[in-house]
Amino acid sequence: MRAEVVAIGTELLLGQIVDTNSSWIGEQLAMAGIDSLHQTKVGDNLERMIGAIELAIGRADAVLICGGLGPTQDDITRLAIASIMGVELVRDAKIVDHIRTLFSSRGRVMAANNELQADVPVGATIIHNPRGTAPGLICPVRSPDGRDVVMYAMPGVPYEMQQMMTGTVIPDLIVRNGDPGTIRSRTLRTWGLAESTLAELIAPRLDALETAAGATIAFLASGMEGIKVRVTTKAASEAACNERLDAEEKLLRDLLGDYVFGLDEVTMEAAVLALLGGRGWTLAVAESVTGGLISQRITDVAGASASFRGGVVSYATAVKRTLLHVSDGPVVSERCALEMAIGVRELLGATVGLSVTGVAGPTEQDGQPVGTIWCGLALPDREPEALGMKVPGDRRRIREFACINALDALRQRLR
Amino acid sequence: MRAEVVAIGTELLLGQIVDTNSSWIGEQLAMAGIDSLHQTKVGDNLERMIGAIELAIGRADAVLICGGLGPTQDDITRLAIASIMGVELVRDAKIVDHIRTLFSSRGRVMAANNELQADVPVGATIIHNPRGTAPGLICPVRSPDGRDVVMYAMPGVPYEMQQMMTGTVIPDLIVRNGDPGTIRSRTLRTWGLAESTLAELIAPRLDALETAAGATIAFLASGMEGIKVRVTTKAASEAACNERLDAEEKLLRDLLGDYVFGLDEVTMEAAVLALLGGRGWTLAVAESVTGGLISQRITDVAGASASFRGGVVSYATAVKRTLLHVSDGPVVSERCALEMAIGVRELLGATVGLSVTGVAGPTEQDGQPVGTIWCGLALPDREPEALGMKVPGDRRRIREFACINALDALRQRLR
Repeated sequence: MRAEVVAIGTELLLGQIVDTNSSWIGEQLAMAGIDSLHQTKVGDNLERMIGAIELAIGRADAVLICGGLGPTQDDITRLAIASIMGVELVRDAKIVDHIRTLFSSRGRVMAANNELQADVPVGATIIHNPRGTAPGLICPVRSPDGRDVVMYAMPGVPYEMQQMMTGTVIPDLIVRNGDPGTIRSRTLRTWGLAESTLAELIAPRLDALETAAGATIAFLASGMEGIKVRVTTKAASEAACNERLDAEEKLLRDLLGDYVFGLDEVTMEAAVLALLGGRGWTLAVAESVTGGLISQRITDVAGASASFRGGVVSYATAVKRTLLHVSDGPVVSERCALEMAIGVRELLGATVGLSVTGVAGPTEQDGQPVGTIWCGLALPDREPEALGMKVPGDRRRIREFACINALDALRQRLR
Repeated sequence: MRAEVVAIGTELLLGQIVDTNSSWIGEQLAMAGIDSLHQTKVGDNLERMIGAIELAIGRADAVLICGGLGPTQDDITRLAIASIMGVELVRDAKIVDHIRTLFSSRGRVMAANNELQADVPVGATIIHNPRGTAPGLICPVRSPDGRDVVMYAMPGVPYEMQQMMTGTVIPDLIVRNGDPGTIRSRTLRTWGLAESTLAELIAPRLDALETAAGATIAFLASGMEGIKVRVTTKAASEAACNERLDAEEKLLRDLLGDYVFGLDEVTMEAAVLALLGGRGWTLAVAESVTGGLISQRITDVAGASASFRGGVVSYATAVKRTLLHVSDGPVVSERCALEMAIGVRELLGATVGLSVTGVAGPTEQDGQPVGTIWCGLALPDREPEALGMKVPGDRRRIREFACINALDALRQRLR
């Protein structure tokens, strides 16, 4: 079974709102084992809306339409659907009552234009909307080549749409789909390799998959989330998917080795915290160029308090000197990074000190170019050390790469 | 002139990443006065990719293709474009040199598959990529109905794509478009009002706009970026747009008053830094529950060092006591927030101390429920104070709302 998503709204085309609905719907379809090969955005224009939906009908068995069901003049999805079905719109008294009740429960009087939301194409089934005014619609239609196709219309408000998807649309699709296959993915998260080098390392596995179907591998460079290697498999059951994913994960780990820092939702921070926890060690962080980013990422992990003592954002040079006892001299330097790591470890009474200093721009500092980063590491079982690196990109990217590089340097020393 | 966006990548259809590129491109097109009537997402499948691009060629004068230019086996956009143009791909030696240089500047050896990125369809013009390996492409093609259409291919990495868009694609489109109408937007960023209350406050202006065309108003709740109120206007020139936007901004400011903290790209952090700078004051931040988020946001603003001394992430209770001299007793409390603000101001020698302590979850702490936040403020011209608040949501949302609420409390006292 093939499904398509059509997202309605001129504000989506103008970039005033990011279309997160289509992404969310795409993920739900994949999880339900339903192929989804196209997604389209179209504005609040009747002719183009009809064109986009009819194109989807010609290619798919189910068309999920999102948005344009509200009470204003530019909410014309109902009109487009009625036109495609070749039927009239009829006002549903029960829906009018529901909308009026919703307004009065919020202490408001229903404006007359809200009744438009109760217009239903003849032959459509209503999806109740407990979270808002506009109901959803299930609309049967026949494709030009004679297939039975179903259109679902849902509101663009994510909170209302999601309720209809999980409560009605996905169960309805699963029934229509008969005995669907199941799709599952697993992501290996890596750091330290260029994307192309990573590609060459796993090329043997990719080549093998081209002949043996049932699994695919994709790459995704996700900034400070690392480069992700995602294996996706389709099989008759979840157990069969997992078995295949286990086997693929093992093969990929053999190829990628220690560059893999985590699976799925495991961030670099979570990986570092787990390694610290395993040793019963605590961490203190001194940040200059990253300005609190490392601490913030670490404390984003629930349970971070078990291993994370805290941090010092020593942004002003005077703070580095007085609080962390960094000696005189340039603050973008190997020695400064080293002394920051040692200083913060002592100040906060931690087992491990980690520090970052450098230049994020927009201008150079101490004669050092933008992108110069020094990372200091003070661990109990080895000499303190500082690593220099050049990081590309704008201010934000430099800070993010400095953060993940510093954490990865610590991870390698904790393994 | 009509443009369409085709975003390439199976990961987009599966919802593994949200397609923010198309939204960003749509906004740039709108700002340049170029109509953009459809956006399509399609997976890494040659046949469907060609189909999606050819469909766009049939409807538009310019097709902006984003993604699939990398070095891996699933990066097949170059193949699709060459097939549509009916030409061969030829390897460009200069691009190979650029890629090799980029690798060696990062201390790496170029893997052979990177050379794929130097393959250029015959007849295409190269868009140089200073930020990455894969060049962009400008490709002329003729539509089935005989119109000259241009395809632009850009990488999916936002940072690389955006540089090509602003540096090359938009200027090229403006030239091709002759004398376009101009669309301009202005965003008033607000904090402190519920979205529905904000809607009611500006309802008179919305009603007036429904009859007088030429401008539209939209709302967008953007988490810790505040609730945005965006005015969009279309006119013959940039000057005419700006005149209308100035007038609308004044009317909206009369209705919204001090809830407006900034315009367009001015974040709450930038607004606070500007107010501190105006007084010649410096800031120190003590963070517990927000774990470095406030410092990170502040230092994300270029030039923050003029007013920001630094911060202490006092995550462990012992750090609060020894470093910030917080007295015994519960750490999620009015007194702790007060003492943290006073303590960090003194420790870092700043004019102003700001602190946040509280419970982000997943479990309660000190008998205080998840979402309890105390924010401390130590300013030179008034008694130190602490504000209590209840913040809804999950761990991340609680931290983000605590951050913007604390900064907004400081902003109100600096105005």
